[in-house]
Amino acid sequence: MLNLLKSTLFLSILLCCSMSFAKDNYHEYIDPFIGSEGLGNVFVGPSNPFGMVKPGPDIGTHSNSGYDPDLTKPLVGFSQIHVSGTGGGPKYGNISIMPYSGDFESVAQTSLRANEHTSVGYYATDLVKWGIKAELATADRAAFHQYTFRDNRNNAIKIDGGFFLGEKAVPDAREAQQFVGSQVEVISPTEIRGYSRIRGGWNNGNAYTVYYHAQVNQPCDSFSTFKGDTLYPSIKSQYDSGDKTGVVCRFSDHKSKTVKLKIGISFISEAKAAENLRGQIPHWNFNLVREQSEQKWERLIAQIELDKSASREQRVMFYTGLYHTMLMPVDRSGENPLWTATPYYDDFYAIWDTFRTSSPLITLIAPERQADIINGMLNIYRYDGYLPEGRSGNTNGRTQGGSNADVVIADAYAKNLSGVNYHQALKAMIKNATVSPGGNSEKEGRGGLEDYNHLGYVSTDYVRAGNRTLEYAYNDFALATVAKGLHRMGEYYRFIDQSNNWQNLWRDTEHDGARGFIMPKDADGKWVDEVPCTIKDGIAQNIEYTPLAQDWPNCVCWWCGFFYEASSWEYSFYVPHDIAQVIEKSGGSGAFEARLNTFFEHNYYNVANEPSFLTPTLYHWLGKPHLSSDRINKIIQEHYTSARDGLPGNDDSGAMSSWLAFHMIGLFPNAGQPYYLINTPQVKSATLHLEGGNTFKVVADKLSKKNRYIVSASLNGKPFNNTWIAHEDVIKGGELKLKMASKPSDWGKGKFPPSLSTMQK
Amino acid sequence: MLNLLKSTLFLSILLCCSMSFAKDNYHEYIDPFIGSEGLGNVFVGPSNPFGMVKPGPDIGTHSNSGYDPDLTKPLVGFSQIHVSGTGGGPKYGNISIMPYSGDFESVAQTSLRANEHTSVGYYATDLVKWGIKAELATADRAAFHQYTFRDNRNNAIKIDGGFFLGEKAVPDAREAQQFVGSQVEVISPTEIRGYSRIRGGWNNGNAYTVYYHAQVNQPCDSFSTFKGDTLYPSIKSQYDSGDKTGVVCRFSDHKSKTVKLKIGISFISEAKAAENLRGQIPHWNFNLVREQSEQKWERLIAQIELDKSASREQRVMFYTGLYHTMLMPVDRSGENPLWTATPYYDDFYAIWDTFRTSSPLITLIAPERQADIINGMLNIYRYDGYLPEGRSGNTNGRTQGGSNADVVIADAYAKNLSGVNYHQALKAMIKNATVSPGGNSEKEGRGGLEDYNHLGYVSTDYVRAGNRTLEYAYNDFALATVAKGLHRMGEYYRFIDQSNNWQNLWRDTEHDGARGFIMPKDADGKWVDEVPCTIKDGIAQNIEYTPLAQDWPNCVCWWCGFFYEASSWEYSFYVPHDIAQVIEKSGGSGAFEARLNTFFEHNYYNVANEPSFLTPTLYHWLGKPHLSSDRINKIIQEHYTSARDGLPGNDDSGAMSSWLAFHMIGLFPNAGQPYYLINTPQVKSATLHLEGGNTFKVVADKLSKKNRYIVSASLNGKPFNNTWIAHEDVIKGGELKLKMASKPSDWGKGKFPPSLSTMQK
Repeated sequence: MLNLLKSTLFLSILLCCSMSFAKDNYHEYIDPFIGSEGLGNVFVGPSNPFGMVKPGPDIGTHSNSGYDPDLTKPLVGFSQIHVSGTGGGPKYGNISIMPYSGDFESVAQTSLRANEHTSVGYYATDLVKWGIKAELATADRAAFHQYTFRDNRNNAIKIDGGFFLGEKAVPDAREAQQFVGSQVEVISPTEIRGYSRIRGGWNNGNAYTVYYHAQVNQPCDSFSTFKGDTLYPSIKSQYDSGDKTGVVCRFSDHKSKTVKLKIGISFISEAKAAENLRGQIPHWNFNLVREQSEQKWERLIAQIELDKSASREQRVMFYTGLYHTMLMPVDRSGENPLWTATPYYDDFYAIWDTFRTSSPLITLIAPERQADIINGMLNIYRYDGYLPEGRSGNTNGRTQGGSNADVVIADAYAKNLSGVNYHQALKAMIKNATVSPGGNSEKEGRGGLEDYNHLGYVSTDYVRAGNRTLEYAYNDFALATVAKGLHRMGEYYRFIDQSNNWQNLWRDTEHDGARGFIMPKDADGKWVDEVPCTIKDGIAQNIEYTPLAQDWPNCVCWWCGFFYEASSWEYSFYVPHDIAQVIEKSGGSGAFEARLNTFFEHNYYNVANEPSFLTPTLYHWLGKPHLSSDRINKIIQEHYTSARDGLPGNDDSGAMSSWLAFHMIGLFPNAGQPYYLINTPQVKSATLHLEGGNTFKVVADKLSKKNRYIVSASLNGKPFNNTWIAHEDVIKGGELKLKMASKPSDWGKGKFPPSLSTMQK
Repeated sequence: MLNLLKSTLFLSILLCCSMSFAKDNYHEYIDPFIGSEGLGNVFVGPSNPFGMVKPGPDIGTHSNSGYDPDLTKPLVGFSQIHVSGTGGGPKYGNISIMPYSGDFESVAQTSLRANEHTSVGYYATDLVKWGIKAELATADRAAFHQYTFRDNRNNAIKIDGGFFLGEKAVPDAREAQQFVGSQVEVISPTEIRGYSRIRGGWNNGNAYTVYYHAQVNQPCDSFSTFKGDTLYPSIKSQYDSGDKTGVVCRFSDHKSKTVKLKIGISFISEAKAAENLRGQIPHWNFNLVREQSEQKWERLIAQIELDKSASREQRVMFYTGLYHTMLMPVDRSGENPLWTATPYYDDFYAIWDTFRTSSPLITLIAPERQADIINGMLNIYRYDGYLPEGRSGNTNGRTQGGSNADVVIADAYAKNLSGVNYHQALKAMIKNATVSPGGNSEKEGRGGLEDYNHLGYVSTDYVRAGNRTLEYAYNDFALATVAKGLHRMGEYYRFIDQSNNWQNLWRDTEHDGARGFIMPKDADGKWVDEVPCTIKDGIAQNIEYTPLAQDWPNCVCWWCGFFYEASSWEYSFYVPHDIAQVIEKSGGSGAFEARLNTFFEHNYYNVANEPSFLTPTLYHWLGKPHLSSDRINKIIQEHYTSARDGLPGNDDSGAMSSWLAFHMIGLFPNAGQPYYLINTPQVKSATLHLEGGNTFKVVADKLSKKNRYIVSASLNGKPFNNTWIAHEDVIKGGELKLKMASKPSDWGKGKFPPSLSTMQK
């Protein structure tokens, strides 16, 4: 009771403080189901912001988030660790818990679902086979399961250390998790502990171990442990013999139909899991845990208030967008079994996805958190050798481009984010840019660096040569940004020069009316017209490489194309630091505008993929921001909704969601550079409550479906003619007023956001 | 009692089988103290062959083996995991156990020693401060401690999970182990479990965890756990909070003065440690454990019988040599927390040391074991990406040359060692030779490979360029050997050609009468005359690079010299596959003989270092094997004894010892090639009991101090004129009879062991 009182008191304090600026219950707009159908792959269970523990339903064994909306597929359990929005091979899904009734002869127990419900910090479903209602809530490092059985007799709860997502029969199948070991020990009639050790998965990670300590609020009348499919009645432990093990706790005749199960989780040990449970859920009050989650989210998302005029659908889309952005990376400080430096974050999944909009959004809403995350990245560099690119289960792994963490750092540096050792960060970036990862180029660093540093581009000797060259050029710009600020002029000159390297693959190819594309070149400097296919299954031996060519996955492997998951049409726009130069090389403003139009109108644009995140706004560099706004509006209308299939692609750890959230309030970051492009917002007014107490308001005066063009703007009452606004102008606080009308004006004409080549002039 | 009976029965079976060919108790000649003084750094506690658990005394915290012969230094505990013969930063020293009496106020408890005794499978010492006799014995995965206190009252045993060897105050000091975490839990009055998690050390390894489950045979009257220096009376557990924790078990008034403690060890979990204990020491019979160790060793070393005429000192030196060779690597099958493939071996420490004589010796005595070890290496390649070079604590790390595992594989292949998938092995070798480890070149693979494959040598852009070039050339020969055998002729031609790459660094330098040395060359192909110093502490800014120059550790860092721990005088002989070519390039036979003489007589030879292991036998390639024998005899007489300082350098996991053992029986391997050079043995006759039942005998007829030259030889009664004998002639069984006399004959004249260049002609 004392604990309960304490917790309630703590909650009250939380409420009091978040309430000071929260006038609405914004968390009620969060709908964790958005993105759960279609391609989103989002996690639907409860999670705290950046929370380590994410208990949720597992429908079958092959969904990335555990979840599958298809109600004809059986639920196989509720495991404790998940990721959200990912593609590729699944990761985690550890320590599966399943309540059931009646049949105690078999280990496998599945049921169909009904009456699924999810809201922030809460998930519930009925297990129709047995009439059980299952509810989940969670703290950061411990989860709370509540199972209400049909009656008080012959029920059971299974805890399975052998379960995980993405298992394949083929040993060491690419991106498939592999079983290493598990263990279970019954400690008392109400306590069980054990672990599951898994390796592989999406990032081909080393083995990680998820330890648990579970407690039930009514004593189990009997236990059976199991190994593989065999149940061992009354045997209270199974040591790790490399087999799948678990336990069934059986309630023959129990006091209350509702059985509560709390489970502490740790990546360190069972005893640490017990400590996490004691520390975070010292009581049996399910609703308290749920409310604490709600308040944690409320505190965070109430930093941006949408005007009352915003529709419910807009609010749901917006606040769910913020929510999705802050599910990962996860804070695992004190939970790293390899080294103890803190902060420690894991599940960068992947930075290639999140550097563009997710990191800038966190910097805006929760700058201290972003500094913490970057410090976590620097600890990974210090102890594991390289900054993370993709990372999960305590292992760096999967570079798509490679070294995009450079942009995250430059973005923070350019925005004066405090609390980061940028000298250390520059060291980490320089390592990326100078020390080849060799055979580990799938894991970290810059693959093909030998070529890049020697030839000025990555040749076709290496896979993903196209995007690697483009991305390294921008990463070099990021490095140069930090180097210049730290007065490291030697590095600055080297890398600002290298940031032009994308031009070395710019070929004067003509395609569908557009001129100039990033095209493959061999190590001797010869353009490559035909890509030799390495996958021989009846298709052509070579394919002609055009700006629309997709050499992967039918001619070469998925990761082996010239561009990662994209075409040259998409990637040839990816020069975020020098759009002016791209315009010039494309034949000037007229040609570039036509090229952009062709891109969108001929469906070369892929809304579901990150390389084109900035592209709809490139009209700004033509002095025609209204065309950007038109594109953005059209994309949102066509591809984003508040429905369960309301995300256009894998949410990618919040990437799609943060792209939307920015555009809804009319600001869009060019990550790595300290400004936001200004576009027509989706809402009439949004207020940002910034760290330090400042308030910044974006007002779209007279915004309506018709009045969708910005015809003039003012900042704090003074005319504002730039179509972009500096980050420092935002955090100073104030009001950006956009005057809207039904026809575009000259606002933005002759005003071009920064470009390296024009700045140099 | 039943268990005891079973164990005795098992022992009898062991005895029966080993006795079938063992007519002497050879294990009694093993003296674990040899190499414990001076530079040997050997481990003196009990260990089974290739045994995972090695309990032993820790004198202070900075000895590589835990041991220090200086009796004025206090013993701080008996930890369970050690390595033997190593240099560099210490590794392991986990789970320290200390008995004591009287003072229960402080965690630290140390005592001076007296009456130390060690024999195979046994170590004992008195702890003079308290009058305690401590005795140790061990199984493969569980240790047995026996402590006899002065009386029955006020005694204690401490188990310390925070202890480890080589701790330094500086965080992340190079080669220093670092603490990650520890945990302890008292389970019952007689059972304690916990773990210690440590990272770093010599090989800069990832964190490894040593779990334990300990049992005492008399109940502890009370417990205090501790965290750091603070004791917590009656608190029965300390979860892993990143602090150093342990437990004191106190015996206020106990039945017997002798307290027995058994401790199971695992790298997987505490429960697995308990299982290891149950499985390996299910009884309380200390002597039985000790005897089982003796018998395991007896079985192995009795494979080579020295003639009765061998002196006791010779026997002690020889059998201790075999013993030292088989302490490591350690068999950890089923104990790898990262992946489950078996066999699994760890503590390759390092292959650069052991490939020359240790691996060939194991192949001869215990071929199935060597196949098992190689399969373990291939599993490491499969799951960790590269073959091990140095490896410890489940992490590859520290390449001295790099990829010397290639020679271990070629040695096995050339000797027809069965049970190895050589196709898989060739794949692993090809990875070494073609995929750069990039920034991980200290960890695995071939550092500087870009240069080597591009320029044909490693340039001064890379550290250790001299030995890397030489070693890669021989490693390429090893690769070519396997490729040819598997009819992979493309690879064969490429790598046999590359095996001449050492010539690209052969410079026509003259030094002390010798001509031609491996010398540094830059990436443009220019010879480097001066090495720029990077360590600026008052010494010259550059040093002239001569064949005797030692650029490390005063001009450049220890690992940054042109040669690793050696001079060009030493390394320029290191062309094991083409000594004929070295002779030619040195100016022919006469010049080469003079060069060898200068090398030994001017003390350019370093007996304590592995690169010169083959050099004393190079006179064979001049047709003058008697000069080889003279050199070898002199080296043994001057540098090897049966005393505690009887090893000339770090035993390096048995390298020094196996060099001696081979030479004592007159055979010496050129690792990677299927023959043994024949020299004057140290003993009149040695009999090898080979796998499959064959017997091979080397007889030195009329050997005496005076009659020290082989004047003729016969194999199975037929004249034998080669000065080397094929491995297959040995394993077929038979007798090699060497006729000895006081003056050399022409035996060997005009007979030259294989060389690549002469074979091609």
